Amino acid sequence: MKVPAKTPLRTELTELPLDQVRTLLAVVDEGTFDAAAAALHVTPSAVSQRVKALEQRTGRVLLVRTKPVRPTESGTVIVRFARQLARLERDARTELGMNDAGDTTRVSIAVNADSLATWFLTALTRVPDESRLCFELRREDESRTATLLREGLVMAAVTSSPDPVAGCSVRSLGRMRYLAAASPEFAERHLGGPLGDALARAPVMTFDRSDDLQDAFVRALRRGRTGASPLRHHIPTSEGFLAAVTAGLGWGMIPEVQAEPLLKTGRLVQLAPRRPVDVPVYWQQWKLDSPALAAVTEAVTATAAQALRA
Amino acid sequence: MKVPAKTPLRTELTELPLDQVRTLLAVVDEGTFDAAAAALHVTPSAVSQRVKALEQRTGRVLLVRTKPVRPTESGTVIVRFARQLARLERDARTELGMNDAGDTTRVSIAVNADSLATWFLTALTRVPDESRLCFELRREDESRTATLLREGLVMAAVTSSPDPVAGCSVRSLGRMRYLAAASPEFAERHLGGPLGDALARAPVMTFDRSDDLQDAFVRALRRGRTGASPLRHHIPTSEGFLAAVTAGLGWGMIPEVQAEPLLKTGRLVQLAPRRPVDVPVYWQQWKLDSPALAAVTEAVTATAAQALRA
Repeated sequence: MKVPAKTPLRTELTELPLDQVRTLLAVVDEGTFDAAAAALHVTPSAVSQRVKALEQRTGRVLLVRTKPVRPTESGTVIVRFARQLARLERDARTELGMNDAGDTTRVSIAVNADSLATWFLTALTRVPDESRLCFELRREDESRTATLLREGLVMAAVTSSPDPVAGCSVRSLGRMRYLAAASPEFAERHLGGPLGDALARAPVMTFDRSDDLQDAFVRALRRGRTGASPLRHHIPTSEGFLAAVTAGLGWGMIPEVQAEPLLKTGRLVQLAPRRPVDVPVYWQQWKLDSPALAAVTEAVTATAAQALRA
Repeated sequence: MKVPAKTPLRTELTELPLDQVRTLLAVVDEGTFDAAAAALHVTPSAVSQRVKALEQRTGRVLLVRTKPVRPTESGTVIVRFARQLARLERDARTELGMNDAGDTTRVSIAVNADSLATWFLTALTRVPDESRLCFELRREDESRTATLLREGLVMAAVTSSPDPVAGCSVRSLGRMRYLAAASPEFAERHLGGPLGDALARAPVMTFDRSDDLQDAFVRALRRGRTGASPLRHHIPTSEGFLAAVTAGLGWGMIPEVQAEPLLKTGRLVQLAPRRPVDVPVYWQQWKLDSPALAAVTEAVTATAAQALRA
């Protein structure tokens, strides 16, 4: 397990008493010492003692005692370790046929909205049935994805961030192409004259406050001068964003695969056809030898190779 | 402004110095006293003094001094008051023609995922153009919606919760009908025998961990015995959920308006056609005499009357 250089826990991890590690995880998941005690069927004082013992052994504060408790940076490393441990145990039980009929292997994945709306579900349908996996998708943006991976709440993520999270490996899946588009009526009404200047004034769609794609496009057109208009609507779903652009609420950057059928039928027009914007897409996953994760990774990389640009 | 009975701030609000109220809002929005000071172009000690003065005047602690700071329950009342104040001021400036050309009126609304995916955007396109509004949508579930309204971060919400949030009025928009559906191949493979028992075993789609719609449907079919199978996939977008059911990953409860075209073409089959599930939909909004909010409310109620069941 890779951990940040400044917290050399690697060698110590093998010496961590697993009951203490599992107790720490329960406290973080349940939020309080009392709730963790109830979940583990032990007394609150036993929970408290185990966490203290683990803190003494690691020489670090592992929990911030707020309500609910929060793991510290060192605590987060151990919580991720605990989740990976649980995963390995479940995989081993599956391979040994020790699971009950109702037992399933849950694979939690964070996916950015445009990938989920376009190619990602196809990948899930290609995971072989006999893996008997249950998928738990979380639709999250880049900032949150790193936290989810770091805390071990997802095992893998489709993200535009190439920065590997501690304990994860990262590989490129390809590039998603975006086209600037608007409805014909919108273009007629708002986009006369030089395009860059018109776009600096015309109503614009953005996904949310952190979506910079439209601004970056306008800045590039205008050689660095100010971005898109302050007249902006935030529509935080991929499909809603597309529907709002098609309805003429604003112009916006649309994934090529969503835009193409609408461009063909004339319901959208492309602005600046020679200026597509390509956004790289990455697969980040726990460094973990899990058959479940391997099956998903294979389906995801194969589907992305067909759906995304190289 | 309506406030909870146990915090009788009503009469005091008119006596609150507005510079102190605005300072409190800046601290909450910026997260720290230092950042608020920078935003307001005053010293951090001035910020601290104003907040303290406001706490003395109200006789209440208004901020939890964490990083970032959090408003207490009393602080939340004043923060909402500050946001409503800003809204009224903006509306008045708009009516007086005092705004710059670039000024716009922003209307922030929380919308549940299925409403956003089906009828809600139509409502936005019906708001008269001359209102010059910018929409900021947040796609949120019921639990989070109440918090956003209470803290004044959204002015209105489409929600299935009829419980009015403090300071808000609530009206019924109608009922959204859900149908239990699956792909024909899925039904063939998993749904032989009594439907309730089959559904208790078959893979099921859920929106997220708090989505109880499928479980409630199975429990009703089985007269209260256990709900849907633990073999469950979480797909947290309305369109992704529909695509996953159509692809045969699981069965699920689908909004009638999304299901109908697929039922007609045979890509979905309806399970238990005589047992639709109707979920009431409400519009919660600030009690505020704002022309912007009134224009949106009118478009939303008119569109919902056509799109939802009475």
